Amino acid sequence: MSVDPCRLTATELEKAFSNDELTVENYAESVLKRIEVRDAVVKAWAYFNPEHVLEQARALDKVPKDQRGRLHGIGVGIKDVIYTKGMPTQLGSPIYVNDQPEMDAASVKMLRCAGALILGKTTTTEFAASIAGTKTTNPHDPGRTPGGSSSGSGAAVADFQATLSLGTQTGGSIIRPASFNGIYGMKPTWNAISREGQKIYSLDLDTLGFYGRSIEDLALCADVFGLKDDEVPRPISDARGLRVAFLKTMVWDHAGIGTREAFQTGKQLLQNAGAHIEDIDFPDDFARLPDWHTYVLYNEGRVYFRPEYQIAKDKLSDFLQGHVEEVHGYTRKDFLEAFDGVAALRPKWDAIADRYDAVVMPSVPDEAPEGLKSTGSAIFNALWTALHVPVINVPAFKGEHGLPIGLSLTSARYKDQALLEVSKAISKAWIK
Amino acid sequence: MSVDPCRLTATELEKAFSNDELTVENYAESVLKRIEVRDAVVKAWAYFNPEHVLEQARALDKVPKDQRGRLHGIGVGIKDVIYTKGMPTQLGSPIYVNDQPEMDAASVKMLRCAGALILGKTTTTEFAASIAGTKTTNPHDPGRTPGGSSSGSGAAVADFQATLSLGTQTGGSIIRPASFNGIYGMKPTWNAISREGQKIYSLDLDTLGFYGRSIEDLALCADVFGLKDDEVPRPISDARGLRVAFLKTMVWDHAGIGTREAFQTGKQLLQNAGAHIEDIDFPDDFARLPDWHTYVLYNEGRVYFRPEYQIAKDKLSDFLQGHVEEVHGYTRKDFLEAFDGVAALRPKWDAIADRYDAVVMPSVPDEAPEGLKSTGSAIFNALWTALHVPVINVPAFKGEHGLPIGLSLTSARYKDQALLEVSKAISKAWIK
Repeated sequence: MSVDPCRLTATELEKAFSNDELTVENYAESVLKRIEVRDAVVKAWAYFNPEHVLEQARALDKVPKDQRGRLHGIGVGIKDVIYTKGMPTQLGSPIYVNDQPEMDAASVKMLRCAGALILGKTTTTEFAASIAGTKTTNPHDPGRTPGGSSSGSGAAVADFQATLSLGTQTGGSIIRPASFNGIYGMKPTWNAISREGQKIYSLDLDTLGFYGRSIEDLALCADVFGLKDDEVPRPISDARGLRVAFLKTMVWDHAGIGTREAFQTGKQLLQNAGAHIEDIDFPDDFARLPDWHTYVLYNEGRVYFRPEYQIAKDKLSDFLQGHVEEVHGYTRKDFLEAFDGVAALRPKWDAIADRYDAVVMPSVPDEAPEGLKSTGSAIFNALWTALHVPVINVPAFKGEHGLPIGLSLTSARYKDQALLEVSKAISKAWIK
Repeated sequence: MSVDPCRLTATELEKAFSNDELTVENYAESVLKRIEVRDAVVKAWAYFNPEHVLEQARALDKVPKDQRGRLHGIGVGIKDVIYTKGMPTQLGSPIYVNDQPEMDAASVKMLRCAGALILGKTTTTEFAASIAGTKTTNPHDPGRTPGGSSSGSGAAVADFQATLSLGTQTGGSIIRPASFNGIYGMKPTWNAISREGQKIYSLDLDTLGFYGRSIEDLALCADVFGLKDDEVPRPISDARGLRVAFLKTMVWDHAGIGTREAFQTGKQLLQNAGAHIEDIDFPDDFARLPDWHTYVLYNEGRVYFRPEYQIAKDKLSDFLQGHVEEVHGYTRKDFLEAFDGVAALRPKWDAIADRYDAVVMPSVPDEAPEGLKSTGSAIFNALWTALHVPVINVPAFKGEHGLPIGLSLTSARYKDQALLEVSKAISKAWIK
């Protein structure tokens, strides 16, 4: 093959494998070589064993064609808060160094059933809960963060070290790294994919999702994980006639020059392509959504880090110790107000979203910030995580330093397939 | 000691251990002997290793007094949908026979931190999701079910084979076995205790809880697991002056003679004790609660049994295969109507409950039914599981065959400590 196989998308690899242009072993060797060359800079992996990857690849090559799964041979990186057999799961925490319960999370079980090649464990911030950076750098600029908490999953896919990867989002942990690394990322409808076998930060917010380098790859993952709307979405060939709303949100003040320009350009390009554009705002009763996300998070963090606090408080960051000690001062009453308040907003949002084919909003304040200490702000993402809606980052734009900036597309809950179809058309209008 | 230690409650054992009247090893020997005598009839254990129990007991005896936890030496049975190090976790499913990932669920981590003696794994129906019976029998009558899905946890505590045990409830899986076995059981506020490391049926309904043979033992568990109200509840010495509501619910037609009599007797005894009794009904907008519970359950079962369906469909019961295949025909729209509908009812219920010190409702239709094929009906429990409120079964009454019948007490969400305090006073009025 003329192209290095590690650079192919999953849908391209699918064809190459089925046409016998490529073996899984050859593809795996290409990925391993890429990792060998780039790992010292990008550091996307929490655990990685080349021999184990090659063994799996050879076994997959032996599977008869009529027994191969949808993801046959495709290399997937697994965020290290998701349990995997045959590899440690260390949760980004010193408490779980080298911990290896022989258990596959539900998502990993489904990946294996689909014939995926499990590459290794990608770095995560502490329990996917902290915004303190990992060792991982942004593939576009090693002096900048790849975002988090799915730091390694975002960087590995962007850097051709994995074709697909799994991430999780409680605030902005899938969409933010997607934007910073310039790749596609999808946070599906909350609870539409099993989260069994994952570390929990918030039952009400944690969402499993995935990364790829094309919208078709996201659609493939959605299929493997069983995301299915009530109605088969109508095929959309281009953006002409699409009804697209642009929503700056109540936290627009946080948008920097990069996101402001992306927003304008995105709107213009869709207008040029013949879409009907409408600027919309949240109704007034959405005003407390950012606060409510925080109340829910802190209350659940209190519950879900209690065991670690008891086992090894000194190995827990101050931030997470604070959750357990309730330093924030929020009461159960505050939490219930937030929990019930957000619940009441969800059907209201669905009704708004159903008026459009998609709603566009910022993915991030701006390009990936400099330094590795912080993974950046989740302020634009937390709203949508709380509303439980599907969100897709389209990596269409660049900021003032030439680094990637994406915009997010969303819809009503359980319209994941429809959103993928619309996002494909919008991507075409945005990415030439 | 004159009493066989296996018959003591946790609070009694606490005293006996701290006064050096009893070693953990002697207590463990008493429990092991009880199990040896009774296991052939009751069959409460999915996994049990006497040597491992004795090893733990001897180690616990060596812990210096000032380093002992709140549950020092207390034997706890763990429902077999909750992962444990050093023991298999088989989930009541042929798919997971002898599966043993070396992982403690969050609840087990907290038990170990508190010094508990982990006795073994108690039987569960398939994935705690099916109502098809296990091998376990009711300790009061081996021809009857102990209820489910926490079959072994209920039976083991009732039969003095465990002092405490963990259960889970998605429909009625904690409260129903508590009533059938004649023990105390508590389903705390949803999500108030970490559920990490458990098989999931429904994220929105699954709740971790516990069993004991006294209300004080439930309070001890609540303390270990960190259940805490916003306000420290006022101490209540007896039922005099308590405001207690009696609620038959919209499914009262399902109540048999045993529950009808328990309801009447319970009311009379509280009146005699000087409580203010009020009969109340659900407002009309609660009418769809039973249906909504089912919609949520089936939608989530579709998601959470998908991996097992892919791995070994033929080892999954028809009932759970049906969830994945959506044989029920409910749409995502039905599910969202239910999910949002129940969410809107929760604050309304809290406002009603806050007018009273406690609300009394049926735990079960009647005594444990005959036979082991079915674990009985969860119809009275599912409502409260969906509303996320704490529920305590008080094992105060007997049915026409002399078998136990309990009544349930509930309150608003996050009033777990207050409900325990009130339940103590009500128990005194009911159990002479």
